[in-house]
Amino acid sequence: RFQGRGAYRFFSVSAARSQILDVAALPHRTVPHYHQTKTSSLLSLHWPQPPRNILLMPKLHAPQVTADAVEFAKYIHSNYPGLNFIFESHIANAIHETLPFPIYTTAPSNAPTLFAKKIDLVTTMGGDGTILRAASLFSMHNSVPPILSFSMGTLGFLGEWKFNEYKRAWRECYMSGCSVTVEDLVDPHTRASVAGQDKPDFTPLPGWDSVRGNGQCMGPSRASKILLRNRLRVGIYDSGGRNINAQLIPTSTAEPDLGPLTADTNHSRPTLANPPYLHAINEVSIDRGSHPHLAIIDIYVNSRFLTEAVADGILISTPTGSTAYSLSAGGSIVHPLVKSLLITPISPRSLSFRPLVLPLHSKVVLKLSPRNRGRELPVSIDGKRRVGVTIGMEVRVEGEKLEKGPDGWRGGVPCVIRASSDGGPEDDDSWVGGLNGLLKFNYPFGEPVEEP
Amino acid sequence: RFQGRGAYRFFSVSAARSQILDVAALPHRTVPHYHQTKTSSLLSLHWPQPPRNILLMPKLHAPQVTADAVEFAKYIHSNYPGLNFIFESHIANAIHETLPFPIYTTAPSNAPTLFAKKIDLVTTMGGDGTILRAASLFSMHNSVPPILSFSMGTLGFLGEWKFNEYKRAWRECYMSGCSVTVEDLVDPHTRASVAGQDKPDFTPLPGWDSVRGNGQCMGPSRASKILLRNRLRVGIYDSGGRNINAQLIPTSTAEPDLGPLTADTNHSRPTLANPPYLHAINEVSIDRGSHPHLAIIDIYVNSRFLTEAVADGILISTPTGSTAYSLSAGGSIVHPLVKSLLITPISPRSLSFRPLVLPLHSKVVLKLSPRNRGRELPVSIDGKRRVGVTIGMEVRVEGEKLEKGPDGWRGGVPCVIRASSDGGPEDDDSWVGGLNGLLKFNYPFGEPVEEP
Amino acid sequence: RFQGRGAYRFFSVSAARSQILDVAALPHRTVPHYHQTKTSSLLSLHWPQPPRNILLMPKLHAPQVTADAVEFAKYIHSNYPGLNFIFESHIANAIHETLPFPIYTTAPSNAPTLFAKKIDLVTTMGGDGTILRAASLFSMHNSVPPILSFSMGTLGFLGEWKFNEYKRAWRECYMSGCSVTVEDLVDPHTRASVAGQDKPDFTPLPGWDSVRGNGQCMGPSRASKILLRNRLRVGIYDSGGRNINAQLIPTSTAEPDLGPLTADTNHSRPTLANPPYLHAINEVSIDRGSHPHLAIIDIYVNSRFLTEAVADGILISTPTGSTAYSLSAGGSIVHPLVKSLLITPISPRSLSFRPLVLPLHSKVVLKLSPRNRGRELPVSIDGKRRVGVTIGMEVRVEGEKLEKGPDGWRGGVPCVIRASSDGGPEDDDSWVGGLNGLLKFNYPFGEPVEEP
Amino acid sequence: RFQGRGAYRFFSVSAARSQILDVAALPHRTVPHYHQTKTSSLLSLHWPQPPRNILLMPKLHAPQVTADAVEFAKYIHSNYPGLNFIFESHIANAIHETLPFPIYTTAPSNAPTLFAKKIDLVTTMGGDGTILRAASLFSMHNSVPPILSFSMGTLGFLGEWKFNEYKRAWRECYMSGCSVTVEDLVDPHTRASVAGQDKPDFTPLPGWDSVRGNGQCMGPSRASKILLRNRLRVGIYDSGGRNINAQLIPTSTAEPDLGPLTADTNHSRPTLANPPYLHAINEVSIDRGSHPHLAIIDIYVNSRFLTEAVADGILISTPTGSTAYSLSAGGSIVHPLVKSLLITPISPRSLSFRPLVLPLHSKVVLKLSPRNRGRELPVSIDGKRRVGVTIGMEVRVEGEKLEKGPDGWRGGVPCVIRASSDGGPEDDDSWVGGLNGLLKFNYPFGEPVEEP
Ligand SMILES: NC(=O)C1=CN([C@@H]2O[C@H](COP(=O)(O)OP(=O)(O)OC[C@H]3O[C@@H](n4cnc5c(N)ncnc54)[C@H](O)[C@@H]3O)[C@@H](O)[C@H]2O)C=CC1
Ligand SMILES: NC(=O)C1=CN([C@@H]2O[C@H](COP(=O)(O)OP(=O)(O)OC[C@H]3O[C@@H](n4cnc5c(N)ncnc54)[C@H](O)[C@@H]3O)[C@@H](O)[C@H]2O)C=CC1
Ligand SMILES: NC(=O)C1=CN([C@@H]2O[C@H](COP(=O)(O)OP(=O)(O)OC[C@H]3O[C@@H](n4cnc5c(N)ncnc54)[C@H](O)[C@@H]3O)[C@@H](O)[C@H]2O)C=CC1
Ligand SMILES: NC(=O)C1=CN([C@@H]2O[C@H](COP(=O)(O)OP(=O)(O)OC[C@H]3O[C@@H](n4cnc5c(N)ncnc54)[C@H](O)[C@@H]3O)[C@@H](O)[C@H]2O)C=CC1
Repeated sequence: RFQGRGAYRFFSVSAARSQILDVAALPHRTVPHYHQTKTSSLLSLHWPQPPRNILLMPKLHAPQVTADAVEFAKYIHSNYPGLNFIFESHIANAIHETLPFPIYTTAPSNAPTLFAKKIDLVTTMGGDGTILRAASLFSMHNSVPPILSFSMGTLGFLGEWKFNEYKRAWRECYMSGCSVTVEDLVDPHTRASVAGQDKPDFTPLPGWDSVRGNGQCMGPSRASKILLRNRLRVGIYDSGGRNINAQLIPTSTAEPDLGPLTADTNHSRPTLANPPYLHAINEVSIDRGSHPHLAIIDIYVNSRFLTEAVADGILISTPTGSTAYSLSAGGSIVHPLVKSLLITPISPRSLSFRPLVLPLHSKVVLKLSPRNRGRELPVSIDGKRRVGVTIGMEVRVEGEKLEKGPDGWRGGVPCVIRASSDGGPEDDDSWVGGLNGLLKFNYPFGEPVEEP
Repeated sequence: RFQGRGAYRFFSVSAARSQILDVAALPHRTVPHYHQTKTSSLLSLHWPQPPRNILLMPKLHAPQVTADAVEFAKYIHSNYPGLNFIFESHIANAIHETLPFPIYTTAPSNAPTLFAKKIDLVTTMGGDGTILRAASLFSMHNSVPPILSFSMGTLGFLGEWKFNEYKRAWRECYMSGCSVTVEDLVDPHTRASVAGQDKPDFTPLPGWDSVRGNGQCMGPSRASKILLRNRLRVGIYDSGGRNINAQLIPTSTAEPDLGPLTADTNHSRPTLANPPYLHAINEVSIDRGSHPHLAIIDIYVNSRFLTEAVADGILISTPTGSTAYSLSAGGSIVHPLVKSLLITPISPRSLSFRPLVLPLHSKVVLKLSPRNRGRELPVSIDGKRRVGVTIGMEVRVEGEKLEKGPDGWRGGVPCVIRASSDGGPEDDDSWVGGLNGLLKFNYPFGEPVEEP
Repeated sequence: RFQGRGAYRFFSVSAARSQILDVAALPHRTVPHYHQTKTSSLLSLHWPQPPRNILLMPKLHAPQVTADAVEFAKYIHSNYPGLNFIFESHIANAIHETLPFPIYTTAPSNAPTLFAKKIDLVTTMGGDGTILRAASLFSMHNSVPPILSFSMGTLGFLGEWKFNEYKRAWRECYMSGCSVTVEDLVDPHTRASVAGQDKPDFTPLPGWDSVRGNGQCMGPSRASKILLRNRLRVGIYDSGGRNINAQLIPTSTAEPDLGPLTADTNHSRPTLANPPYLHAINEVSIDRGSHPHLAIIDIYVNSRFLTEAVADGILISTPTGSTAYSLSAGGSIVHPLVKSLLITPISPRSLSFRPLVLPLHSKVVLKLSPRNRGRELPVSIDGKRRVGVTIGMEVRVEGEKLEKGPDGWRGGVPCVIRASSDGGPEDDDSWVGGLNGLLKFNYPFGEPVEEP
Repeated sequence: RFQGRGAYRFFSVSAARSQILDVAALPHRTVPHYHQTKTSSLLSLHWPQPPRNILLMPKLHAPQVTADAVEFAKYIHSNYPGLNFIFESHIANAIHETLPFPIYTTAPSNAPTLFAKKIDLVTTMGGDGTILRAASLFSMHNSVPPILSFSMGTLGFLGEWKFNEYKRAWRECYMSGCSVTVEDLVDPHTRASVAGQDKPDFTPLPGWDSVRGNGQCMGPSRASKILLRNRLRVGIYDSGGRNINAQLIPTSTAEPDLGPLTADTNHSRPTLANPPYLHAINEVSIDRGSHPHLAIIDIYVNSRFLTEAVADGILISTPTGSTAYSLSAGGSIVHPLVKSLLITPISPRSLSFRPLVLPLHSKVVLKLSPRNRGRELPVSIDGKRRVGVTIGMEVRVEGEKLEKGPDGWRGGVPCVIRASSDGGPEDDDSWVGGLNGLLKFNYPFGEPVEEP
């Protein structure tokens, strides 16, 4: 087995075709541009040059999906030259022998740092859980690569493509925006440049031509649509007011829960002096965990005391997360483009704790009330437990800012959206379809009587 | 057209086969017995002699259903001799020429009085609305005949038989309990006797033998199951504390709303001295009607002030009605055998007005608050407007008592339940089936991906 | 009585002091500037010159409030020279004799047109209903004057000042921004100019100096805070697709419901060719009115079919309205600064119609389903019935745009917010206070045991 | 410390006054009669002879309440001779030295068996949690002694007396029904006889006379009112279909969670052959505990599959529990006299899982779906974790039957209700008061403006 130890070792030198190489050896990441258009509230995806480094994340514990990932990788590799496939280390170990070309990985403890520097595009295969896992690999970073996701078996709310469409999906995403010359567009999400290079070079780079039989660009109107999902920025503070996020760096391992961090890494780590933010794409929650008694949590909004929640727990959710846990807890369904955050109580001991929707940039602070009598409550991000908080500690949450940086726009999780093939309304972000098809929103009563 | 004027006139003397006769001429009603059994919480239906006078109520404004009712009547008439078919007058007028035998009716204004004396069994064809209409014909009476209901086109929550099963359904219901000797059973719903006769004679009377090819009794185990639905008893009081129910007698006409009462009836009418109760099978409601402002209603329970509701309205619902308006307004779903009544507010201006479930025999009083400033609010029973109440008036509601009277058990609406043909659990009252099949209760998210 | 006939006539010439003059004679409106600040998400109010034309709207049918309005007018008139007081005509008639100076009014049918041209500032005295009434006077217009509102007797959610604070409130609002030189600020709400004049002149005009003993400006930091409430733009279309808004112009009369429009006005009216929009500050609703049966309404979002609502009605609400009817119907509480609109069903016959929050600029269309069988359903705006819609008609709703125009920023209703006197957090928009103080949000269970 | 080892040992022989004696040495329990009355749906309490053995349970971890319990015990001891005070062992250890008379206790492991044989009356001092703890001591038994409860500091929903009323409360409860000759009453809760004696002797026994200055009986009309709270009967079954309740016997210790059972007891224990039921007074729950993923639970009602719940958990609640966890999870409020059980999902991943209210005697079975992938979910009774269930195991729940046995009526938890001192309506079960006073039911919006 590949033993993650901070630097890559050849796993199987005898057969070059089934090598596992180190992600560190890959070229730097290509950062795409996102353009606004007049006709849609979605963005469109523009690669300054073809994406090369693809992180492929199949669902865990699902052998059939692993097999599908192998099929996908083989097909893409044959038809789109020059691509590098990255897998999480336990997947890489499991499949490299079935692939006729080398693949890349790194130790779980390095993944959060290294992936952010190298990955051009993430492709997930699974349900919403796999997308959340992908997003969590970048949860310490501002600039998340676009995520192209396939639902396998059951549709998910976040993933828009069916696996049997993968050829079309890949082609659309890979070629997206290839012939576009970027004009100076009016709005926030427009300008972007290739990471690490200053001169913008927007003519198609080598790569697109060489796609077998597919070399022609499809033009700007066929650019993939991107839904930029807002995230929440989370800081955990100890009772001395110190940010302890740096101690909570997630791992990219097969174990979904936070394991102890190994110390043997050379990669720069965030420090206490410059603590990283954790980002949530669905929600941050504090709950009573396995404790039988109600949790008591003081909530502050913009430094003002809002209320004392006596409840199973509290969720601070994104609009994306409004169809996840918050929905179960009774929250409204909020469109992902509404710039907001939700405060939704979980089983509150109150008749009058109605869910709230606040401006995205509100600053929400959760504090354990001293009335909890010294217990520790788990804090989870996107369903993954990160830390336990005790009296005196604080969880500070606010909407992540979207801002222009030296290497393009930062903030949010760019999700590639399936274009409606039926020529539907332009502004089709598949959200209405998901409400009806997946959530069975307002599902009608009754049924026709069957004929005899 | 047959013009209801209190006494029947021949409508078409030329063709005896298409005569319309007066319900008053029919023999008195046969009241069935209802037995409790050890294995089920439903009752079983036992006719002391075959039912003869059948009220047939097709859905209004649905020509196909009227045609189905004609088919049904013809079939039953040929195979089960000695039956008399009663229709509401507008239906009778519409169909008597298509039937090869005389039918019965009476003027709408007489129906509430006369039907209660003559009808052995009600058969509805339509949805829940038709059942509610049937029940409303007996809403002034304690002893409602059993209701056999067919759903036509769309299934309803209250009606359990599909129309294409009508031969089996009829046979089961008609023969129900024909060979049973009634023992003295332990509990409330047990003892019953034939209306108007004192000597209990429980051997099958003539009539069952003569059913063509069907003469054999099916034995007690095949008795039809009866769900006895509790009703609410409603009294409307004017500002002087006088019961004004007698002014609100429902009509059995095609107009669902309360028309002015015609005065030309010979039949005894309830008087102010001895006001009848109105009964609701779903709910009693007060709402703001077309008034733009919130209604303000004071609610008392057992003479104690409960709360002031500021809302679109208030529902006092039966468990049966818990899947009707109360469900829409956010109430819990209550099994019809839970002896209770529900107080459910409609769009209350409050965060903390949670729906309540009280013991069935609680006395609830609704009073318009003087803060309503002199307006009139409509009171409806089972979705049918009955009267407008103003400040000072009261609506008094309590569960109808089930009690033994000289002519059998009184109270409730006995509904014939479709026996599960799949040999399911004994205590199958079709309620769980209705939850899942009709209300799409806890309908699962997601859907399988279609194969290519 | 003053008889509104399109042009003003002197009512009482004998006593100049109690004259009622015509609003048409007043100087043109002064439009304030609204500035964004770094520390708050609220805007700040800046008058280019002191406001002169004040519309004073006391609550209807409340003699004490009318008396308070007289007291207020007298005080302001004595201490702040040069002000003109405008009242709705029925109020003007009732009070002009008690005032020692002339007041202004116009016929109800002219108010919607004339007020928009003349009023600098609206002062309401009453509850939320009075504010809604004030907003409805400007519901055909993009540029609504700032509203300073006093709650009288009971606090309202929209009105932030208590009447006993009126001297401070008025002073703050009148002097607001008097010494500020407007720089070119970065964002939407920044630039504004005096209506009808091109040269921006931002030094204090005569008027401020002359305030008795109050002449000193309080500086920019003391500028009044403005919450700009988003509105919904509503178009009603007949079955031929024609906008019929022009037929629904509201009147400013004492009758809150839409009366027939008088034809005798010289003022320019919107025409079918150029139909005005109607604007809602709380919500647009369609409901079943006094009809006993469920309404069936098809809902489209951005031209895509969303769902068929079978319900008492449907609300399209602003965030402001999220604490009004939508709250009663089960909607979430949405902060007024979240750019969104809410779709909240009223008592839907469905287990799965969860309230939705959409981006503000979504286009929502409500159509009566043909399944309603020909009835007419009332459409209301802010609780005031405007029109009945029938099958084939459409109600089109979308968020009002905020945009820069020749005469300053347009869109929204600018509400003057009470500054926290306790030196609370800067970003105090009183919303949290309203949740806790008025809505009793998450009101804690239990109570201390009284000591013996 | 008193070390519970199955048989009592003297703890402190030197000082007789502060002795701790063994509960086993006490006389047998006196079982009261409960009578129905015409005017109330509550029962009335009738002691065949004065209660002697009083279990006194102060709230845990609350020194002030322990001190109050000492005060109470001293007062009662001086004024009501012949009483024996029993405490849980850790309390007995803590306080026996402060009391001038011997007290009784037993080892925690013996408490569930021994208390049921000896305790005449339970007096709790604390909140609802203390009452639940008291009830849990009798959760394996059909016949629970009456519970007189005092709320200390904060009122609880289950406890009706304030501590400062303790003299009156005690007197009323102790003397309750002392002069009544029991007639044969019509209904269920009527007949009862003294445990262990056959001859009913209903004249006051010695004991009542000797109460200092209080010897006179207050007559039947002053009998204490009893609310008999229904319980749920719970059986846990392993994957082989074997009832494992016997392994889950609760302890009466200070640790609220289930510890390992000590084996050193001579007292007869329920065996696998004759497993005891566990009883819940609030609810039985299965939840996801500290597991991050949704629990998947199959629910059956009367052997029929109802639904698959995908949720944080599932509650099966009594009407009593409808104001506890079920309320937080969104359930309706159900009056304790409505014979029913509630199925309430906790944060279900569904839009359409509305809470259900079923007849009390419904048989509900909860099974872990195999889709849970091998994890263990905690089952709790009244908020106390009892066992973890895994795939294949079942939790079977049904309403406890109320039945006449050789030693009186069995089933339910008889709670002494505070009589309204204000001469309120007869049927005052304090439930309406609790809704308004404690739960702030339908708490009105707004507030009066304070005067300056
Ligand atoms: N009671 C509840 O509803 C709970 C919900 N969750 C949610 O699960 C998420 C973690 O997901 P998994 O690791 O897959 O846990 P999981 O295996 O427990 O599945 C959660 C379910 O939520 C769905 N889901 C996730 N994100 C969604 C979204 N944004 N919109 C609609 N559906 C969504 C998934 O498809 C899956 O069906 C958390 O972020 C939290 O939102 C977690 C615990 C309890
Ligand atoms: N917003 C709402 O949900 C409203 C509901 N209603 C209900 O409609 C009833 C009158 O029925 P219609 O005259 O047919 O009016 P309708 O034509 O408006 O239909 C009401 C709907 O409720 C269904 N329904 C009736 N009783 C039911 C029950 N007990 N359980 C489940 N579904 C039931 C019917 O099948 C029909 O789909 C009233 O008693 C009231 O409960 C009436 C007005 C508004
Ligand atoms: N069931 C309900 O809750 C209903 C509510 N309404 C609401 O009433 C409004 C009209 O108000 P009025 O003419 O005064 O009618 P009204 O006299 O019926 O009072 C409505 C109540 O809502 C309050 N209110 C109004 N706007 C509010 C807001 N934005 N946030 C919080 N509270 C608010 C008012 O203070 C008043 O207490 C409508 O726009 C609608 O939102 C109207 C009908 C029914
Ligand atoms: N999210 C929630 O609401 C939760 C509620 N609980 C409830 O707590 C109960 C255990 O109580 P504690 O040990 O004191 O736990 P606890 O210390 O967590 O307090 C539970 C709260 O519920 C109240 N309560 C208990 N039974 C009640 C009833 N029948 N009606 C009204 N209020 C009631 C208590 O007064 C207390 O305020 C459980 O039976 C369960 O019903 C337990 C866990 C979570």
